[in-house]
Amino acid sequence: MTRLTPYYAVIFTSTQNEDLSGYEDMANKMETLAKQQKGFLGIESARNNVGITVSYWESLEAIKSWKQDSEHLLAQQNGRTQWYNWYHVRICKVEREYDFKSK
Amino acid sequence: MTRLTPYYAVIFTSTQNEDLSGYEDMANKMETLAKQQKGFLGIESARNNVGITVSYWESLEAIKSWKQDSEHLLAQQNGRTQWYNWYHVRICKVEREYDFKSK
Repeated sequence: MTRLTPYYAVIFTSTQNEDLSGYEDMANKMETLAKQQKGFLGIESARNNVGITVSYWESLEAIKSWKQDSEHLLAQQNGRTQWYNWYHVRICKVEREYDFKSK
Repeated sequence: MTRLTPYYAVIFTSTQNEDLSGYEDMANKMETLAKQQKGFLGIESARNNVGITVSYWESLEAIKSWKQDSEHLLAQQNGRTQWYNWYHVRICKVEREYDFKSK
């Protein structure tokens, strides 16, 4: 996904607790829901020792609106009480980008 | 790591080829070298289907200087000819952040 900059990225890094019951269902649900939000551009995730999810958005307003979505608020609450040992959220403006693709 | 914003993040996403000979040594070497750069703040990585590495920097100048480091240039070249199927680099300004830590 290459877009005209600037747009916005949310870098979500985390480590998880041992009890992950319900997590996968909720994570899938939130990804589906995020993709339906106005201003959503894309999402990428990977997890080893640390989990990194980066979601891309057209504007800060789109990010704020998704943060306040009622189902997402419930997921955030479950995240804090059950699934996450810690997490860190960074709101970033993507100023420049370039890519490479092998032939 | 929580810093006074703004600072900068480089989001490097990639998928790899099958022949990864030499990759791990080079990746370790580049991480060690990056940490010695002026303006380096931190780095986080995870890889499943896609690899995501986010490095954090004090300034755009620090990012530019690291990109042009001679050993790093060689690693980038090897990345394009051998290890990476594709990669995407986004230069971002971290405007705001918050974190959570369980008790």
